[in-house]
Amino acid sequence: MSELGEHTPVEPLPVPSPAPVRVALLGCGTVGAEVVRLLQEQADDLAARVGATVELAGVAVRRPHRHPEVPASLLTTDAATLVASDVDVVVEVIGGIEPARTLLLDALRAGKSVVTANKALLASHAAELFAAADASGADLYFEAAVAGAIPLIRPLRESLAGDRITRVMGIVNGTTNYILSAMDATGSGYAEVLEEATALGYAEADPTADVDGYDAAAKAAILASLAFHTRVTAADVYREGISTVTAADVAAAKEIGRTVKLLAICEREVDTGEDGEPVESVSVRVHPAMVPRSHPLAGVGGAFNAVFVEAEAAGQLMFYGQGAGGAPTASAVLGDLVAVARNRVMGGRGPRESAYADLPVRPMGRTRTRYYIALDVADKPGVLTQVAAVFAEHGVSIASVRQEGRDGADVGEDGLANLVVITHSAPDAALRSTVDKLAGLPVVREVVSVMRVEGEAP
Amino acid sequence: MSELGEHTPVEPLPVPSPAPVRVALLGCGTVGAEVVRLLQEQADDLAARVGATVELAGVAVRRPHRHPEVPASLLTTDAATLVASDVDVVVEVIGGIEPARTLLLDALRAGKSVVTANKALLASHAAELFAAADASGADLYFEAAVAGAIPLIRPLRESLAGDRITRVMGIVNGTTNYILSAMDATGSGYAEVLEEATALGYAEADPTADVDGYDAAAKAAILASLAFHTRVTAADVYREGISTVTAADVAAAKEIGRTVKLLAICEREVDTGEDGEPVESVSVRVHPAMVPRSHPLAGVGGAFNAVFVEAEAAGQLMFYGQGAGGAPTASAVLGDLVAVARNRVMGGRGPRESAYADLPVRPMGRTRTRYYIALDVADKPGVLTQVAAVFAEHGVSIASVRQEGRDGADVGEDGLANLVVITHSAPDAALRSTVDKLAGLPVVREVVSVMRVEGEAP
Repeated sequence: MSELGEHTPVEPLPVPSPAPVRVALLGCGTVGAEVVRLLQEQADDLAARVGATVELAGVAVRRPHRHPEVPASLLTTDAATLVASDVDVVVEVIGGIEPARTLLLDALRAGKSVVTANKALLASHAAELFAAADASGADLYFEAAVAGAIPLIRPLRESLAGDRITRVMGIVNGTTNYILSAMDATGSGYAEVLEEATALGYAEADPTADVDGYDAAAKAAILASLAFHTRVTAADVYREGISTVTAADVAAAKEIGRTVKLLAICEREVDTGEDGEPVESVSVRVHPAMVPRSHPLAGVGGAFNAVFVEAEAAGQLMFYGQGAGGAPTASAVLGDLVAVARNRVMGGRGPRESAYADLPVRPMGRTRTRYYIALDVADKPGVLTQVAAVFAEHGVSIASVRQEGRDGADVGEDGLANLVVITHSAPDAALRSTVDKLAGLPVVREVVSVMRVEGEAP
Repeated sequence: MSELGEHTPVEPLPVPSPAPVRVALLGCGTVGAEVVRLLQEQADDLAARVGATVELAGVAVRRPHRHPEVPASLLTTDAATLVASDVDVVVEVIGGIEPARTLLLDALRAGKSVVTANKALLASHAAELFAAADASGADLYFEAAVAGAIPLIRPLRESLAGDRITRVMGIVNGTTNYILSAMDATGSGYAEVLEEATALGYAEADPTADVDGYDAAAKAAILASLAFHTRVTAADVYREGISTVTAADVAAAKEIGRTVKLLAICEREVDTGEDGEPVESVSVRVHPAMVPRSHPLAGVGGAFNAVFVEAEAAGQLMFYGQGAGGAPTASAVLGDLVAVARNRVMGGRGPRESAYADLPVRPMGRTRTRYYIALDVADKPGVLTQVAAVFAEHGVSIASVRQEGRDGADVGEDGLANLVVITHSAPDAALRSTVDKLAGLPVVREVVSVMRVEGEAP
């Protein structure tokens, strides 16, 4: 430190404002209650990190009597007035589109920093929210909106800002991962495991948002937007849920050393355009897929989340942790709150959002995927030739094929054989047409199972 | 966007400066050359993300003729003059203490932002570097200093800023992980695998910094400082390398379902003080340890790095990726460069470093660990009683004990038995004294293997 004594600073030291940073909390459910608790318990630490006290100015809720843990003087049912009052930061954990959208737009337009955990809102209305933030110079942070406590937004938005991300592939929904892990472990069917998951509180009474992939699709849209500097909304995301995954699919995956996961996949793809120049696009999709058991994502069990990121210079990265729950999500909210509060005290702003690349979103039919296809076929000469011809006709090449009798012998007792084909990658539409055509072949008794395959070496 | 049309911004839009951000690069080895390449290849993307062009103003190297890939007009041997010229950002990838320390202090005092990958410097001189940055209001970023491309500094410094980190445990040195993974896979001894690793380029000609744990200790100091808001230097870190790990140790670990890893462990510990108040301290250590094969860190093979983080609200998180190499490290440098360049263009500063908690560093002897101890003992009645008495005398309780003849039978042909003890956690000094005392017991022929055990449920 002796060197410093001899040195006159070039710029004056910023003087931290002694004024507290005043925070409005909108919503006080599982996450909000944890935010209130952490703000109290860690007040000293937060003040030291921010450079000023962080003060809870008010908590907007629908039914104040249900929140004995919050001082009554802070509770209000009038969120709009709370947002309009002299608060510096608005933390939103209500969820859903309205009234969250209007409240946050009001806050941002008034130059107030916003921290939100609202994935549905960001996946559908990001453009107007970021425009409002940019117009007033306010911060808009949303680490908690994707994968709960796992720091993912900040790494994508900042750490990899000097790199080119080529792929993001993750397990971003805990409910479906819990169900698929349980199906894999027990061999039980979807309906049975869902019932259990509901009883244990791992699935909502109405599980549609989770099991039909809407939740994962919203997260995929947010991740793709950040990774590719391109505006992607939930409506752009191809989506299949897990309700059609059968015990037979899971068993078939097991037999070939794979496990079924609901994946959110965001890819940058490059084609050669008509003029010979490379043409970039992105594809964003959510669907169940068979993943090799040796893949790190295969080991992510229960309600955990994990996201693989591939970038040109950085190579492969993985982020793993708890994707939901009050405390983990509140941790992410508090991290953002410290950042935006510090920005207010010290001056400056966090990174702005950018959509400069503006890449087109490639439709699912043109996205290259690989299929696993299991067929029950007549066990007689020439069947394999007929089946193979259908693949060839659609320009789909076969990576592996296995034929055996349905009872494990070469020929099934019932005269049927089981034919399992894994394809090389091909446009999804070509793979679908292949399956449709196979289903119509007289020698094919039944298409037993069809699922995409991911996470293999190309 | 229609809402925005009706809306008058509260503050004017910041006007991005058209002036380029001028960058001085100090050092142009493997990482530096990649930085130069990425700056050229991704110039348009970087400009869009920063809001101004990022311009390489000069590259300081020792031998200019060795860098044909850099335009000759940019090369200089005079780093001090380059730093003093009209550059905005100094990127340092020289490594080592001097001249890096003097150059970066000069840059920071002059208000220039600094991006560095220099773990040795940060682990020993962080205090004066951060003081200089704070005095002038300059940014000091160092994502590349720990675990290469893996975003780790930013999550610890920012994402978890609203949480209380209790533990950081990681594999942060690729060379030693490569060697230990190979020993585990092949059963070969340390010397043999090191030779192979050197031939393949996974170990330096002089591997001391890696195999003796100095590199990992520097990273542990940086991680502990960030995680616990406390100044920890490399000299505070307890350190054991891997050169004493034998093929027998690795085989023994395998036999009990574990694998040997060199771990960097940073823990927050709480004792009850004399007045009954909790007294916090931190312990920071690097040593080989047996890890259960079911632990996610056990599966991290080859030259990969991975870091587990436990925080009170967030729970368990893991970050995984390439910890070294030109391109991955350059990715981390570029991410930081985008952040500091954007801060210069848009106004504002990144997070300041904080050491407000100022917790004492607990000496290794008082840190609680668990030991695996394998002994060759005389195979006669009363031996186990004598051995158990030594543990009891030192206040160490035994979690499990297994005795068998050295040839696998109950009694060895040579009249010796192998006794394997795994302890519960106890102060490290008590465990060491226990081992010393055991070695002196007449019934103990040899202390075959002693290693700490980590990553188990408590």
